[in-house]
Amino acid sequence: MNKRKLRMGMIGGGKDAFIGAIHRLAINMDGQVELVCGALSVNPETALESGKLLFLPDDRTYTSYVEMLDKEAARPPHERIDFVTIVTPNFAHFAPAMKALECGFNVVIEKPITFTLEEAKQLQAKLAETGLMLLLTHTYAGYPLVKEAREIIKSGKLGKVRKIYVEYLQGWLSRLSEREGNAQASWRTDPSKSGKAGCMGDIGTHAAHLAEHVSGLKITALNAALTTVVNGRMLDDDGAVLLKFEQEVTGTLIASQVAAGEENSLRLRIYGENGGLEWSQMEPNTLTLRWLDKPAETLRAGSGYTDRLSTSATSNCRTPGGHPEGYLEAFANLYKNFVLALGAKIEGREPQPEWLDFPSIDEGIRGMAFIDNVVASNASDEKWTTYTV
Amino acid sequence: MNKRKLRMGMIGGGKDAFIGAIHRLAINMDGQVELVCGALSVNPETALESGKLLFLPDDRTYTSYVEMLDKEAARPPHERIDFVTIVTPNFAHFAPAMKALECGFNVVIEKPITFTLEEAKQLQAKLAETGLMLLLTHTYAGYPLVKEAREIIKSGKLGKVRKIYVEYLQGWLSRLSEREGNAQASWRTDPSKSGKAGCMGDIGTHAAHLAEHVSGLKITALNAALTTVVNGRMLDDDGAVLLKFEQEVTGTLIASQVAAGEENSLRLRIYGENGGLEWSQMEPNTLTLRWLDKPAETLRAGSGYTDRLSTSATSNCRTPGGHPEGYLEAFANLYKNFVLALGAKIEGREPQPEWLDFPSIDEGIRGMAFIDNVVASNASDEKWTTYTV
Amino acid sequence: MNKRKLRMGMIGGGKDAFIGAIHRLAINMDGQVELVCGALSVNPETALESGKLLFLPDDRTYTSYVEMLDKEAARPPHERIDFVTIVTPNFAHFAPAMKALECGFNVVIEKPITFTLEEAKQLQAKLAETGLMLLLTHTYAGYPLVKEAREIIKSGKLGKVRKIYVEYLQGWLSRLSEREGNAQASWRTDPSKSGKAGCMGDIGTHAAHLAEHVSGLKITALNAALTTVVNGRMLDDDGAVLLKFEQEVTGTLIASQVAAGEENSLRLRIYGENGGLEWSQMEPNTLTLRWLDKPAETLRAGSGYTDRLSTSATSNCRTPGGHPEGYLEAFANLYKNFVLALGAKIEGREPQPEWLDFPSIDEGIRGMAFIDNVVASNASDEKWTTYTV
Amino acid sequence: MNKRKLRMGMIGGGKDAFIGAIHRLAINMDGQVELVCGALSVNPETALESGKLLFLPDDRTYTSYVEMLDKEAARPPHERIDFVTIVTPNFAHFAPAMKALECGFNVVIEKPITFTLEEAKQLQAKLAETGLMLLLTHTYAGYPLVKEAREIIKSGKLGKVRKIYVEYLQGWLSRLSEREGNAQASWRTDPSKSGKAGCMGDIGTHAAHLAEHVSGLKITALNAALTTVVNGRMLDDDGAVLLKFEQEVTGTLIASQVAAGEENSLRLRIYGENGGLEWSQMEPNTLTLRWLDKPAETLRAGSGYTDRLSTSATSNCRTPGGHPEGYLEAFANLYKNFVLALGAKIEGREPQPEWLDFPSIDEGIRGMAFIDNVVASNASDEKWTTYTV
Repeated sequence: MNKRKLRMGMIGGGKDAFIGAIHRLAINMDGQVELVCGALSVNPETALESGKLLFLPDDRTYTSYVEMLDKEAARPPHERIDFVTIVTPNFAHFAPAMKALECGFNVVIEKPITFTLEEAKQLQAKLAETGLMLLLTHTYAGYPLVKEAREIIKSGKLGKVRKIYVEYLQGWLSRLSEREGNAQASWRTDPSKSGKAGCMGDIGTHAAHLAEHVSGLKITALNAALTTVVNGRMLDDDGAVLLKFEQEVTGTLIASQVAAGEENSLRLRIYGENGGLEWSQMEPNTLTLRWLDKPAETLRAGSGYTDRLSTSATSNCRTPGGHPEGYLEAFANLYKNFVLALGAKIEGREPQPEWLDFPSIDEGIRGMAFIDNVVASNASDEKWTTYTV
Repeated sequence: MNKRKLRMGMIGGGKDAFIGAIHRLAINMDGQVELVCGALSVNPETALESGKLLFLPDDRTYTSYVEMLDKEAARPPHERIDFVTIVTPNFAHFAPAMKALECGFNVVIEKPITFTLEEAKQLQAKLAETGLMLLLTHTYAGYPLVKEAREIIKSGKLGKVRKIYVEYLQGWLSRLSEREGNAQASWRTDPSKSGKAGCMGDIGTHAAHLAEHVSGLKITALNAALTTVVNGRMLDDDGAVLLKFEQEVTGTLIASQVAAGEENSLRLRIYGENGGLEWSQMEPNTLTLRWLDKPAETLRAGSGYTDRLSTSATSNCRTPGGHPEGYLEAFANLYKNFVLALGAKIEGREPQPEWLDFPSIDEGIRGMAFIDNVVASNASDEKWTTYTV
Repeated sequence: MNKRKLRMGMIGGGKDAFIGAIHRLAINMDGQVELVCGALSVNPETALESGKLLFLPDDRTYTSYVEMLDKEAARPPHERIDFVTIVTPNFAHFAPAMKALECGFNVVIEKPITFTLEEAKQLQAKLAETGLMLLLTHTYAGYPLVKEAREIIKSGKLGKVRKIYVEYLQGWLSRLSEREGNAQASWRTDPSKSGKAGCMGDIGTHAAHLAEHVSGLKITALNAALTTVVNGRMLDDDGAVLLKFEQEVTGTLIASQVAAGEENSLRLRIYGENGGLEWSQMEPNTLTLRWLDKPAETLRAGSGYTDRLSTSATSNCRTPGGHPEGYLEAFANLYKNFVLALGAKIEGREPQPEWLDFPSIDEGIRGMAFIDNVVASNASDEKWTTYTV
Repeated sequence: MNKRKLRMGMIGGGKDAFIGAIHRLAINMDGQVELVCGALSVNPETALESGKLLFLPDDRTYTSYVEMLDKEAARPPHERIDFVTIVTPNFAHFAPAMKALECGFNVVIEKPITFTLEEAKQLQAKLAETGLMLLLTHTYAGYPLVKEAREIIKSGKLGKVRKIYVEYLQGWLSRLSEREGNAQASWRTDPSKSGKAGCMGDIGTHAAHLAEHVSGLKITALNAALTTVVNGRMLDDDGAVLLKFEQEVTGTLIASQVAAGEENSLRLRIYGENGGLEWSQMEPNTLTLRWLDKPAETLRAGSGYTDRLSTSATSNCRTPGGHPEGYLEAFANLYKNFVLALGAKIEGREPQPEWLDFPSIDEGIRGMAFIDNVVASNASDEKWTTYTV
């Protein structure tokens, strides 16, 4: 464990923002990080008010990330932040991330990592150059049973993988909410803020990441059909993709934000020669294993199941079985591992292997490439588009 | 109700056959039909033994459907069969069906209706010519809550339909069982007996039928990728299809017989502007409605729910809510409606509208066309193949 | 298999009756029984009309069970019925059953077997005297996974049994329906027709039977609190009972017909030293096994699971896994086994062991004793009432 | 919102303790509280090490709660703790709580509140005298949908309540773990540390609280049968209780810690004239409403469902629907409301009504009385024991 709390600054995440508040809940939980400064909003009034709500001192409440990073970099080492968390809309990820790295700060960043693949590659180069650390908050990778699923695939128990089905259904964009004052809908459906894909960028990337992450297999070709279902919308709000993975595995990816009545239904199924696994984000503490020749098994999350689950899973549980953990705990797991790994680095200790288990720049590159490839495939009359990075 | 039991002959369905036994269970249930003769097997010994097990008189146990149909046609009207049920493998559907129609007998036939689309069209013409009736046993259409789902879509409660997802996952062909003496596997994976598609013909057609049947929308274009996952298999055992339907609706169809650990998981989801519905064959007595603006509702099958369900659904329930009905009852519903409609016709009565609710030649044509189109699309490098009949 | 269909007569079960129709569906399914006569109603018009709907000849449609049994007994052996099924209200079970036995006919009877325990004992004596067979239709014993649960307990896999929880919740008597023309509610809440217990007789007996049947343990003492929740009702419509079983096992039985919104929720849980099992009638094709030291397992019904399930279970499945079977199939299993055992007896063959697996007079005696004991305990201020027969 | 973080000290909860760590996760989440001192263990080494892990200064790491409370009381107001959290075993709740109140500190305390009912009454008197605040961490009351359930009952939508079924099944004490070095098992089954009841004190009190809390009805009489299933155990590990509530409502309470394979299965069902509700702790984001005359509804937790759920529920959600929240968030809700109410009091502001929604001394008194009454009833041969406080 770390000898002191790490110090963090936040960029974006003012008082009415959605994802910034989620990040703070996740950061707080384990008590290993102190929020010490913020450029929470470009609006001075909002910035100040947000800072007060978070008990920040006025002199560490900024309205410009540039100012914040410069001033923090100038502080003495025992005050200076260890890392910065960037929770602005997609188009405003790259510049602060790059500046933070240049100032010597480690970085946490919401997904998708940048606005373009090119930017992501520049970040990659800068990370290599500086040796700093980056956490990309692909939240769903933080669930203990997602980790368990990955270990099961790796173990070969299911036999050679054959099929991967992933789907992510939401209904919250079933109407033209971006014209009705919904701030989230507004920027997420705006190509100038969100990027070249809507639904596929926002949630399709989560689904693609989950599929690759758990299976350990990379997508090699795709056959995409994106749709803009709601009239007047500027980006895709729905789509389906046929997939080819390495090792002759095939699959499908379905994503929709107009599946009216659905909440946040991310679901992964992988089948191998001997059986299959299924995990659903909305009931995340259960992992179902179905077998060709024996009864299905239900794995359950829980800190005490050290004989039933891998260390990878149990080290990311905080409570015994039957005490449900959820989205915020999954999110907190990303931070926990990042912070433990970063603390070890700062203090010159060897990290435990499980601390290194968090998404980073490689996942960011894959995410941006997925967006590029899925948009390209959608625009093509060819059935299959080779996945390129 | 009919004044007498209808008389039936059966072609195929000898003592070790799978689907013939299922048909008989379904036929028996309501006590409206009497099995009076059979050409249950081409093997004389099997035919005789099977006949005895079914309490058939020896002189109405045949080894040739031609003989059976000729002899039955020669019997006096009060003995003669009213209809014939054909439960042979796919390649042996057409000839007995055509012969039966020529002899003046109504026909029940397992799906897919014939070996080729051309044969299906010939049957269509013969039916039109003779005015006889045909039941195609698309079992899943017999479930009360499938009927309810169709009524809900028709009612417009969900708003304009936008998305259709249908999937049918089985795992029983995960190994090369056709080489291990599994008779079902053997003929179903043999193109000379099953037809030009394997998985897509066997279960993909069920999925396609369910999607069109419930939504009331026809597929207009498809983008298919079929796979033969198990080495040495002669036909596809897996596939996924992107779909376009009428009215700018899009969707996906997933079918696999190598999803190891899955039993018979047919599942349909349809989303409209206001909400979505979900039905799963393995828990058929529940229909979930999710709504954009209110809590999800769970409809349940049951004969007493005359205020909650449509007549279309309740008239196909035999028990009160909470007394689960299943696959055999769904199957029996097809026969029940067919037999009531046929009885009415024979007796010169007007049928009740719900009796006419059973799949027939049009569904047979669509099924064969689906096979043709999905195979053509799979062979094409073009993304979209226009669906033609 | 039997060489001929067995011949059956039915007492009660006219055209508007509930349970008679259920019996016929169950009887028909396997095609092993022919309904040849009936005293379906004491009302001549109803009797005749009901007979016609069932295609009975007029001369075997009776209005008096006495007349029917006498006339049938006088028929030549090759015409005479093999058994009679009694589906009248409780108070009218005993007399026709006794008369049938006296006439040499085997008997099928709805539960509870008689109106009083004393009557049940008289039937027991008559059965012993005549050597005839009796089937008591405790339907829930017919489910394949109930049989599997019993085998699992017997095998000792769960270790010594410790706890038994059984509950049966319905909501259909939440209002005073007996005063609103509901015929079922009317006789079932009338002590002169139903007996000394209402809810406990109607469904509590099912729950008690299931607990004893699956666990193999007998109730030895009980502590009951019955309630009449709906004002104006003449019998209990709700109750709960603390139970002691043999071998120091304890448990609870909950039954209610005023659990508004519940359908037919019969649910059994048994825990042993190593794990527990759970089965719910409304999802009868799943049996959950939970273990102290390993992941929970989900057993599924299915004719093909000969390696996963006992013969006791698979021999009572008609379809492969994933093709749901339900209440009517469970009911049909009772008849199937009874008819196979009876046929073997008639034909002088040795029955297969699994054919003898159906509830009979012993279960009938236990059921009537349960009613007596639960009513006595409810009336007592003593905590525990010793269960006596 | 509060103008500053509240300052907290912790008594108990050293580095290997279970519930102390849970409290800290819950406290941290919302970032409104700072842990500033602790008497985390009576073992000096453990106390110091635990303090370091929590980044406490050495001079605020104590080995005696008396010393801690005296020294903290002597600090200037801007440093002094606002409240103390007591997470010691049951027998060590009362003395530090009383001392804290005497020092003028507000108190958070694990349940059961004290070792005896008499102690609880003394705390009640002291609270009245001092006007200080107390939070009793009946965690399950913190779930949003438990609050919703309570609001639904209060609204009368279900009609007059008739039945309450509550059960709490665990399996973790299926073996004699207290003899195998399990620290939790050891003190919880030791009457000198846990109190006069084992299972009923540990989890039966949770079940009783949930039933009374949601229904708004108090238990008036009970009929209990407790068991010690595992040989050698010193307290009950299992039991069942028939209940009478106010307004002629009846119910049952089942609790077991030897239900092998169960995790933490707390489940509540309440039925009224028009329908019933069901909530299960292991899937806490779903509340099922079943209705006599319409389809069942599924309510879901989520911060955005301001039109579907009461403020009482939504104000205790942190994420949108479909992002599961769990046990730690429920726990955090208790603290959140307590801390907001306490902050308002300190700052002289009027609290919002929903901030006052947390369990306190009255629930503590009921819990201790439940233990006394259930033990008395178990010891009695009388069927019913009147519930006295």
